[in-house]
Amino acid sequence: MMSTPKLYSYWRSTASYRVRIALALKGIAYDYVPVNLLHGEQLEAPFKGINPQAQIPVLQIDDASLHQSLAILDYLEVTRPAPALLPADPVQASQARAFALSIAADIHPIQNLRVLKYLKREFDQEQPGIDAWARHWIALGFAACEDIAIQRKTAFLFSDAPGYAECVLIPQSYNAGRFGVDMTPFPALGDVIAACADHSAFQIAHPDVQPDAPEAG
Amino acid sequence: MMSTPKLYSYWRSTASYRVRIALALKGIAYDYVPVNLLHGEQLEAPFKGINPQAQIPVLQIDDASLHQSLAILDYLEVTRPAPALLPADPVQASQARAFALSIAADIHPIQNLRVLKYLKREFDQEQPGIDAWARHWIALGFAACEDIAIQRKTAFLFSDAPGYAECVLIPQSYNAGRFGVDMTPFPALGDVIAACADHSAFQIAHPDVQPDAPEAG
Repeated sequence: MMSTPKLYSYWRSTASYRVRIALALKGIAYDYVPVNLLHGEQLEAPFKGINPQAQIPVLQIDDASLHQSLAILDYLEVTRPAPALLPADPVQASQARAFALSIAADIHPIQNLRVLKYLKREFDQEQPGIDAWARHWIALGFAACEDIAIQRKTAFLFSDAPGYAECVLIPQSYNAGRFGVDMTPFPALGDVIAACADHSAFQIAHPDVQPDAPEAG
Repeated sequence: MMSTPKLYSYWRSTASYRVRIALALKGIAYDYVPVNLLHGEQLEAPFKGINPQAQIPVLQIDDASLHQSLAILDYLEVTRPAPALLPADPVQASQARAFALSIAADIHPIQNLRVLKYLKREFDQEQPGIDAWARHWIALGFAACEDIAIQRKTAFLFSDAPGYAECVLIPQSYNAGRFGVDMTPFPALGDVIAACADHSAFQIAHPDVQPDAPEAG
Protein backbone atom coordinates (compact mmCIF):
# COMPACT_ATOMS: atom_id res chain seq x y z
CA MET A 1 0.00 0.00 0.00
CA MET A 2 1.23 3.46 -0.86
CA SER A 3 1.67 5.83 2.06
CA THR A 4 -0.18 9.15 2.29
CA PRO A 5 1.47 11.84 0.11
CA LYS A 6 3.55 14.43 1.96
CA LEU A 7 3.70 18.07 0.91
CA TYR A 8 6.67 20.13 2.10
CA SER A 9 5.22 23.62 2.14
CA TYR A 10 5.36 27.09 3.65
CA TRP A 11 2.07 28.87 4.21
CA ARG A 12 3.02 31.98 2.23
CA SER A 13 5.05 30.32 -0.52
CA THR A 14 3.52 31.05 -3.92
CA ALA A 15 4.66 27.78 -5.49
CA SER A 16 3.45 25.71 -2.51
CA TYR A 17 0.07 27.45 -2.73
CA ARG A 18 -0.27 26.35 -6.40
CA VAL A 19 0.24 22.70 -5.47
CA ARG A 20 -2.14 22.93 -2.49
CA ILE A 21 -4.88 24.15 -4.85
CA ALA A 22 -4.21 21.34 -7.34
CA LEU A 23 -4.29 18.69 -4.60
CA ALA A 24 -7.57 20.12 -3.31
CA LEU A 25 -9.13 20.30 -6.79
CA LYS A 26 -8.26 16.65 -7.35
CA GLY A 27 -9.36 15.63 -3.85
CA ILE A 28 -5.99 14.13 -2.91
CA ALA A 29 -5.40 13.82 0.85
CA TYR A 30 -1.88 14.58 2.08
CA ASP A 31 0.20 15.27 5.16
CA TYR A 32 1.43 18.85 5.51
CA VAL A 33 5.10 19.25 6.45
CA PRO A 34 5.98 22.88 7.18
CA VAL A 35 9.37 24.25 6.06
CA ASN A 36 9.99 27.68 7.56
CA LEU A 37 11.62 29.80 4.86
CA LEU A 38 12.13 32.73 7.24
CA HIS A 39 14.27 30.49 9.46
CA GLY A 40 16.13 29.11 6.42
CA GLU A 41 14.93 25.57 7.04
CA GLN A 42 15.03 24.89 3.29
CA LEU A 43 18.84 25.23 3.44
CA GLU A 44 19.35 22.73 6.26
CA ALA A 45 18.92 19.05 7.11
CA PRO A 46 16.56 17.30 6.94
CA PHE A 47 14.98 19.27 4.09
CA LYS A 48 18.20 19.82 2.15
CA GLY A 49 18.51 16.03 1.87
CA ILE A 50 15.01 15.85 0.42
CA ASN A 51 15.56 18.58 -2.17
CA PRO A 52 19.19 19.63 -2.79
CA GLN A 53 17.78 22.56 -4.78
CA ALA A 54 16.60 23.88 -1.38
CA GLN A 55 13.24 24.95 -2.76
CA ILE A 56 9.71 24.18 -1.77
CA PRO A 57 7.29 22.71 -2.58
CA VAL A 58 8.30 19.07 -2.65
CA LEU A 59 5.57 16.46 -3.02
CA GLN A 60 6.41 12.93 -1.94
CA ILE A 61 3.92 10.67 -3.66
CA ASP A 62 3.91 7.16 -5.20
CA ASP A 63 7.40 6.55 -3.73
CA ALA A 64 8.75 9.52 -5.72
CA SER A 65 9.94 12.93 -4.57
CA LEU A 66 8.82 15.67 -6.97
CA HIS A 67 9.74 19.34 -7.09
CA GLN A 68 8.92 22.44 -9.19
CA SER A 69 5.24 23.28 -8.82
CA LEU A 70 4.20 23.09 -12.48
CA ALA A 71 6.02 19.77 -12.95
CA ILE A 72 4.09 18.48 -9.92
CA LEU A 73 0.80 19.66 -11.45
CA ASP A 74 1.65 17.80 -14.65
CA TYR A 75 2.45 14.62 -12.71
CA LEU A 76 -0.87 14.78 -10.86
CA GLU A 77 -2.70 15.35 -14.15
CA VAL A 78 -1.16 12.26 -15.75
CA THR A 79 -1.52 9.93 -12.75
CA ARG A 80 -4.88 11.23 -11.41
CA PRO A 81 -6.63 12.49 -14.55
CA ALA A 82 -10.05 13.18 -12.99
CA PRO A 83 -11.07 15.87 -12.41
CA ALA A 84 -8.93 17.31 -15.20
CA LEU A 85 -6.86 20.45 -14.65
CA LEU A 86 -6.24 20.90 -18.40
CA PRO A 87 -8.69 20.97 -21.32
CA ALA A 88 -8.74 17.78 -23.41
CA ASP A 89 -8.19 19.70 -26.65
CA PRO A 90 -4.42 20.07 -27.25
CA VAL A 91 -4.68 23.68 -28.48
CA GLN A 92 -6.71 24.76 -25.46
CA ALA A 93 -4.41 22.79 -23.14
CA SER A 94 -1.43 24.64 -24.63
CA GLN A 95 -3.20 27.97 -24.11
CA ALA A 96 -3.96 27.12 -20.47
CA ARG A 97 -0.30 26.18 -19.95
CA ALA A 98 0.78 29.41 -21.67
CA PHE A 99 -1.38 31.45 -19.31
CA ALA A 100 0.15 29.67 -16.32
CA LEU A 101 3.67 30.21 -17.66
CA SER A 102 3.01 33.89 -18.31
CA ILE A 103 2.72 34.16 -14.51
CA ALA A 104 5.04 31.38 -13.31
CA ALA A 105 7.87 32.41 -15.63
CA ASP A 106 7.19 36.05 -16.54
CA ILE A 107 6.02 37.51 -13.22
CA HIS A 108 6.69 35.47 -10.12
CA PRO A 109 10.46 34.78 -10.43
CA ILE A 110 11.19 38.49 -10.79
CA GLN A 111 9.30 39.48 -7.61
CA ASN A 112 10.41 36.45 -5.58
CA LEU A 113 11.96 37.09 -2.16
CA ARG A 114 15.52 36.11 -3.09
CA VAL A 115 15.49 38.63 -5.96
CA LEU A 116 14.15 41.42 -3.73
CA LYS A 117 16.87 40.64 -1.19
CA TYR A 118 19.54 41.01 -3.91
CA LEU A 119 18.15 44.42 -4.90
CA LYS A 120 18.44 45.56 -1.30
CA ARG A 121 21.83 44.00 -0.58
CA GLU A 122 23.73 44.65 -3.83
CA PHE A 123 21.95 47.65 -5.33
CA ASP A 124 21.17 49.47 -2.03
CA GLN A 125 17.48 49.74 -2.82
CA GLU A 126 15.12 50.86 -0.06
CA GLN A 127 11.65 49.38 0.42
CA PRO A 128 9.78 51.91 -1.80
CA GLY A 129 11.99 51.08 -4.80
CA ILE A 130 11.68 47.36 -4.14
CA ASP A 131 7.89 47.54 -3.84
CA ALA A 132 7.67 49.58 -7.05
CA TRP A 133 9.76 46.91 -8.81
CA ALA A 134 7.39 44.14 -7.67
CA ARG A 135 4.30 46.13 -8.61
CA HIS A 136 5.76 46.94 -12.05
CA TRP A 137 6.28 43.30 -13.06
CA ILE A 138 3.00 42.11 -11.59
CA ALA A 139 0.96 44.85 -13.33
CA LEU A 140 2.78 44.31 -16.65
CA GLY A 141 2.13 40.58 -16.53
CA PHE A 142 -1.47 40.91 -15.38
CA ALA A 143 -2.19 43.30 -18.29
CA ALA A 144 -1.26 40.47 -20.68
CA CYS A 145 -3.33 38.00 -18.64
CA GLU A 146 -6.30 40.36 -18.68
CA ASP A 147 -6.31 40.32 -22.52
CA ILE A 148 -6.76 36.56 -22.35
CA ALA A 149 -9.29 36.62 -19.49
CA ILE A 150 -11.50 39.10 -21.42
CA GLN A 151 -11.79 36.67 -24.33
CA ARG A 152 -12.85 33.66 -22.28
CA LYS A 153 -16.18 32.02 -23.07
CA THR A 154 -16.42 30.02 -19.84
CA ALA A 155 -16.94 30.80 -16.14
CA PHE A 156 -13.27 30.18 -15.39
CA LEU A 157 -10.34 30.85 -17.72
CA PHE A 158 -10.39 27.78 -19.93
CA SER A 159 -13.36 25.77 -18.67
CA ASP A 160 -16.45 26.01 -16.49
CA ALA A 161 -14.35 24.57 -13.67
CA PRO A 162 -11.07 25.96 -12.34
CA GLY A 163 -7.85 24.22 -13.38
CA TYR A 164 -4.17 24.62 -14.21
CA ALA A 165 -4.39 28.36 -15.00
CA GLU A 166 -6.25 29.22 -11.79
CA CYS A 167 -3.77 27.20 -9.70
CA VAL A 168 -1.18 29.78 -10.78
CA LEU A 169 -3.36 32.91 -11.02
CA ILE A 170 -4.70 32.86 -7.47
CA PRO A 171 -1.35 32.70 -5.62
CA GLN A 172 -0.10 35.55 -7.83
CA SER A 173 -3.19 37.63 -7.02
CA TYR A 174 -2.43 37.00 -3.33
CA ASN A 175 1.07 38.42 -3.93
CA ALA A 176 -0.41 41.35 -5.80
CA GLY A 177 -2.39 42.15 -2.66
CA ARG A 178 0.73 41.99 -0.50
CA PHE A 179 2.51 44.52 -2.73
CA GLY A 180 -0.54 46.78 -3.09
CA VAL A 181 -1.03 46.34 -6.83
CA ASP A 182 -4.07 48.25 -8.13
CA MET A 183 -6.32 45.55 -9.60
CA THR A 184 -8.96 47.91 -11.06
CA PRO A 185 -7.40 47.74 -14.58
CA PHE A 186 -8.00 43.95 -14.57
CA PRO A 187 -11.77 43.41 -14.17
CA ALA A 188 -11.92 40.14 -16.12
CA LEU A 189 -9.16 38.66 -13.94
CA GLY A 190 -11.06 40.05 -10.96
CA ASP A 191 -14.17 38.07 -11.96
CA VAL A 192 -12.16 34.84 -12.15
CA ILE A 193 -10.42 35.58 -8.84
CA ALA A 194 -13.79 36.21 -7.17
CA ALA A 195 -15.20 32.94 -8.54
CA CYS A 196 -12.18 31.06 -7.14
CA ALA A 197 -12.60 32.71 -3.74
CA ASP A 198 -16.04 31.07 -3.53
CA HIS A 199 -14.69 27.62 -4.40
CA SER A 200 -13.86 25.25 -1.54
CA ALA A 201 -10.58 23.99 -3.05
CA PHE A 202 -9.20 27.53 -3.04
CA GLN A 203 -10.47 28.15 0.48
CA ILE A 204 -8.70 25.14 2.01
CA ALA A 205 -5.49 25.92 0.10
CA HIS A 206 -5.37 29.57 1.27
CA PRO A 207 -2.21 30.61 3.16
CA ASP A 208 -4.12 31.85 6.21
CA VAL A 209 -5.57 28.43 7.04
CA GLN A 210 -2.36 26.40 6.76
CA PRO A 211 -0.98 24.70 9.89
CA ASP A 212 2.12 26.96 9.91
CA ALA A 213 0.24 30.25 9.41
CA PRO A 214 0.52 32.63 12.37
CA GLU A 215 -2.58 33.02 14.55
CA ALA A 216 -4.87 35.82 13.44
CA GLY A 217 -4.97 38.99 15.51
CA MET B 1 -4.36 20.42 -46.34
CA MET B 2 -2.65 22.14 -43.43
CA SER B 3 -0.23 24.88 -44.36
CA THR B 4 3.42 24.81 -43.33
CA PRO B 5 3.91 25.89 -39.68
CA LYS B 6 5.27 29.42 -39.18
CA LEU B 7 7.66 30.29 -36.37
CA TYR B 8 7.91 33.94 -35.34
CA SER B 9 11.42 34.13 -33.96
CA TYR B 10 14.45 36.30 -33.30
CA TRP B 11 17.85 34.71 -33.79
CA ARG B 12 19.11 35.53 -30.29
CA SER B 13 15.85 35.02 -28.37
CA THR B 14 16.28 32.31 -25.73
CA ALA B 15 12.66 31.18 -25.87
CA SER B 16 12.64 31.07 -29.70
CA TYR B 17 15.83 28.98 -29.60
CA ARG B 18 14.09 26.39 -27.37
CA VAL B 19 11.28 25.95 -29.88
CA ARG B 20 13.70 25.78 -32.84
CA ILE B 21 15.48 22.88 -31.13
CA ALA B 22 12.21 21.05 -30.43
CA LEU B 23 11.03 21.47 -34.04
CA ALA B 24 14.39 20.16 -35.29
CA LEU B 25 14.37 17.18 -32.89
CA LYS B 26 10.90 16.23 -34.12
CA GLY B 27 11.79 16.86 -37.77
CA ILE B 28 9.00 19.41 -38.30
CA ALA B 29 9.55 21.73 -41.28
CA TYR B 30 8.51 25.35 -40.81
CA ASP B 31 8.77 28.82 -42.28
CA TYR B 32 10.91 31.27 -40.29
CA VAL B 33 9.40 34.73 -39.75
CA PRO B 34 11.91 37.11 -38.15
CA VAL B 35 10.71 39.60 -35.53
CA ASN B 36 13.43 42.12 -34.74
CA LEU B 37 13.33 42.72 -30.98
CA LEU B 38 16.00 45.44 -31.18
CA HIS B 39 13.73 47.44 -33.50
CA GLY B 40 10.71 46.76 -31.25
CA GLU B 41 8.84 44.88 -33.98
CA GLN B 42 7.14 42.72 -31.31
CA LEU B 43 5.30 45.85 -30.11
CA GLU B 44 3.91 46.84 -33.54
CA ALA B 45 1.58 45.59 -36.27
CA PRO B 46 1.55 43.07 -37.79
CA PHE B 47 3.09 41.06 -34.93
CA LYS B 48 1.12 42.71 -32.14
CA GLY B 49 -2.05 41.42 -33.83
CA ILE B 50 -0.63 37.91 -33.81
CA ASN B 51 0.39 37.96 -30.14
CA PRO B 52 -1.03 40.80 -28.01
CA GLN B 53 1.43 39.72 -25.30
CA ALA B 54 4.11 41.09 -27.65
CA GLN B 55 6.42 38.17 -26.99
CA ILE B 56 8.14 35.71 -29.24
CA PRO B 57 8.14 32.89 -30.09
CA VAL B 58 4.77 32.29 -31.65
CA LEU B 59 4.19 29.06 -33.54
CA GLN B 60 1.32 29.00 -36.02
CA ILE B 61 0.48 25.35 -36.58
CA ASP B 62 -2.65 23.25 -37.22
CA ASP B 63 -4.67 26.49 -37.67
CA ALA B 64 -3.75 27.57 -34.11
CA SER B 65 -1.46 30.32 -32.87
CA LEU B 66 0.57 29.18 -29.86
CA HIS B 67 2.83 31.15 -27.53
CA GLN B 68 5.04 30.53 -24.46
CA SER B 69 7.89 28.23 -25.42
CA LEU B 70 7.24 25.42 -22.92
CA ALA B 71 3.52 25.37 -23.75
CA ILE B 72 4.53 25.03 -27.42
CA LEU B 73 6.86 22.12 -26.56
CA ASP B 74 3.99 20.39 -24.74
CA TYR B 75 1.68 20.88 -27.73
CA LEU B 76 4.23 19.38 -30.11
CA GLU B 77 4.75 16.44 -27.73
CA VAL B 78 1.01 15.65 -27.64
CA THR B 79 0.32 16.11 -31.34
CA ARG B 80 3.62 14.72 -32.73
CA PRO B 81 4.66 12.18 -30.09
CA ALA B 82 7.57 10.62 -31.99
CA PRO B 83 10.40 11.12 -31.34
CA ALA B 84 9.45 11.82 -27.72
CA LEU B 85 10.87 14.83 -25.88
CA LEU B 86 9.75 13.49 -22.49
CA PRO B 87 10.31 10.09 -20.83
CA ALA B 88 7.26 7.78 -20.88
CA ASP B 89 7.46 7.20 -17.12
CA PRO B 90 5.44 9.92 -15.33
CA VAL B 91 7.99 10.37 -12.52
CA GLN B 92 10.87 10.79 -14.97
CA ALA B 93 8.75 13.07 -17.16
CA SER B 94 8.02 15.25 -14.12
CA GLN B 95 11.75 15.36 -13.30
CA ALA B 96 12.61 16.40 -16.87
CA ARG B 97 9.97 19.14 -16.68
CA ALA B 98 11.30 20.23 -13.29
CA PHE B 99 14.81 20.55 -14.74
CA ALA B 100 13.46 22.67 -17.60
CA LEU B 101 11.48 24.87 -15.20
CA SER B 102 14.48 25.34 -12.93
CA ILE B 103 15.98 27.22 -15.90
CA ALA B 104 12.89 28.62 -17.63
CA ALA B 105 11.38 29.96 -14.39
CA ASP B 106 14.30 30.27 -11.95
CA ILE B 107 17.08 31.65 -14.18
CA HIS B 108 16.03 33.06 -17.51
CA PRO B 109 13.28 35.55 -16.51
CA ILE B 110 15.62 37.26 -14.04
CA GLN B 111 18.37 37.85 -16.62
CA ASN B 112 16.05 38.66 -19.50
CA LEU B 113 16.68 41.90 -21.42
CA ARG B 114 13.63 43.79 -20.14
CA VAL B 115 14.72 43.17 -16.54
CA LEU B 116 18.28 44.32 -17.23
CA LYS B 117 16.90 47.48 -18.84
CA TYR B 118 14.87 48.22 -15.69
CA LEU B 119 17.97 47.87 -13.52
CA LYS B 120 19.75 50.39 -15.71
CA ARG B 121 16.84 52.82 -16.09
CA GLU B 122 15.30 52.80 -12.59
CA PHE B 123 18.18 51.74 -10.34
CA ASP B 124 21.00 53.53 -12.23
CA GLN B 125 23.04 50.38 -12.55
CA GLU B 126 26.07 50.44 -14.86
CA GLN B 127 27.04 47.50 -17.07
CA PRO B 128 29.37 45.80 -14.52
CA GLY B 129 26.61 45.62 -11.92
CA ILE B 130 24.12 44.37 -14.50
CA ASP B 131 26.50 41.68 -15.78
CA ALA B 132 27.22 40.56 -12.20
CA TRP B 133 23.48 40.26 -11.58
CA ALA B 134 23.03 38.06 -14.66
CA ARG B 135 26.04 35.90 -13.79
CA HIS B 136 24.80 35.49 -10.19
CA TRP B 137 21.41 34.06 -11.16
CA ILE B 138 22.79 31.86 -13.94
CA ALA B 139 25.52 30.38 -11.72
CA LEU B 140 23.11 29.83 -8.82
CA GLY B 141 20.64 28.04 -11.08
CA PHE B 142 23.28 26.00 -12.88
CA ALA B 143 24.66 24.78 -9.52
CA ALA B 144 21.24 23.20 -8.84
CA CYS B 145 21.12 21.80 -12.39
CA GLU B 146 24.63 20.36 -11.99
CA ASP B 147 23.46 18.31 -8.97
CA ILE B 148 20.89 16.69 -11.22
CA ALA B 149 23.21 16.27 -14.21
CA ILE B 150 25.79 14.46 -12.03
CA GLN B 151 23.24 11.82 -11.08
CA ARG B 152 22.13 11.00 -14.63
CA LYS B 153 22.54 7.43 -15.85
CA THR B 154 22.09 8.23 -19.54
CA ALA B 155 24.07 10.05 -22.23
CA PHE B 156 21.76 13.04 -22.06
CA LEU B 157 19.90 14.31 -18.98
CA PHE B 158 16.91 11.98 -18.85
CA SER B 159 17.44 9.65 -21.82
CA ASP B 160 20.02 8.52 -24.33
CA ALA B 161 18.57 11.07 -26.71
CA PRO B 162 18.18 14.81 -26.07
CA GLY B 163 14.70 16.11 -25.20
CA TYR B 164 12.67 18.64 -23.22
CA ALA B 165 15.42 19.41 -20.70
CA GLU B 166 18.10 19.98 -23.35
CA CYS B 167 15.74 22.26 -25.33
CA VAL B 168 15.95 24.62 -22.34
CA LEU B 169 19.52 23.96 -21.14
CA ILE B 170 21.30 24.79 -24.40
CA PRO B 171 19.81 28.28 -24.95
CA GLN B 172 20.63 29.10 -21.32
CA SER B 173 24.22 27.92 -21.78
CA TYR B 174 24.40 30.21 -24.83
CA ASN B 175 23.33 33.10 -22.56
CA ALA B 176 25.87 32.04 -19.96
CA GLY B 177 28.54 32.47 -22.62
CA ARG B 178 27.31 35.96 -23.51
CA PHE B 179 27.57 37.05 -19.86
CA GLY B 180 30.93 35.35 -19.30
CA VAL B 181 29.75 32.82 -16.70
CA ASP B 182 32.55 30.51 -15.55
CA MET B 183 31.32 27.02 -16.49
CA THR B 184 34.19 25.07 -14.86
CA PRO B 185 32.12 24.36 -11.69
CA PHE B 186 29.56 22.53 -13.87
CA PRO B 187 31.42 19.65 -15.60
CA ALA B 188 28.40 17.32 -15.82
CA LEU B 189 26.35 20.04 -17.52
CA GLY B 190 29.39 20.66 -19.71
CA ASP B 191 29.33 17.04 -20.91
CA VAL B 192 25.65 17.31 -21.85
CA ILE B 193 26.22 20.65 -23.57
CA ALA B 194 29.10 19.18 -25.58
CA ALA B 195 26.99 16.19 -26.64
CA CYS B 196 24.25 18.56 -27.84
CA ALA B 197 26.77 20.63 -29.80
CA ASP B 198 27.55 17.51 -31.85
CA HIS B 199 23.85 16.85 -32.58
CA SER B 200 22.42 18.12 -35.87
CA ALA B 201 19.13 19.39 -34.34
CA PHE B 202 21.07 21.74 -32.07
CA GLN B 203 23.31 22.85 -34.93
CA ILE B 204 20.45 23.91 -37.20
CA ALA B 205 18.66 25.66 -34.31
CA HIS B 206 21.74 27.70 -33.28
CA PRO B 207 21.29 31.49 -33.30
CA ASP B 208 24.24 32.09 -35.64
CA VAL B 209 22.70 30.16 -38.54
CA GLN B 210 19.23 31.75 -38.44
CA PRO B 211 18.07 33.85 -41.41
CA ASP B 212 18.05 37.04 -39.32
CA ALA B 213 21.48 36.54 -37.75
CA PRO B 214 24.03 39.17 -38.76
CA GLU B 215 26.71 38.07 -41.20
CA ALA B 216 29.84 36.75 -39.55
CA GLY B 217 32.92 38.97 -39.57
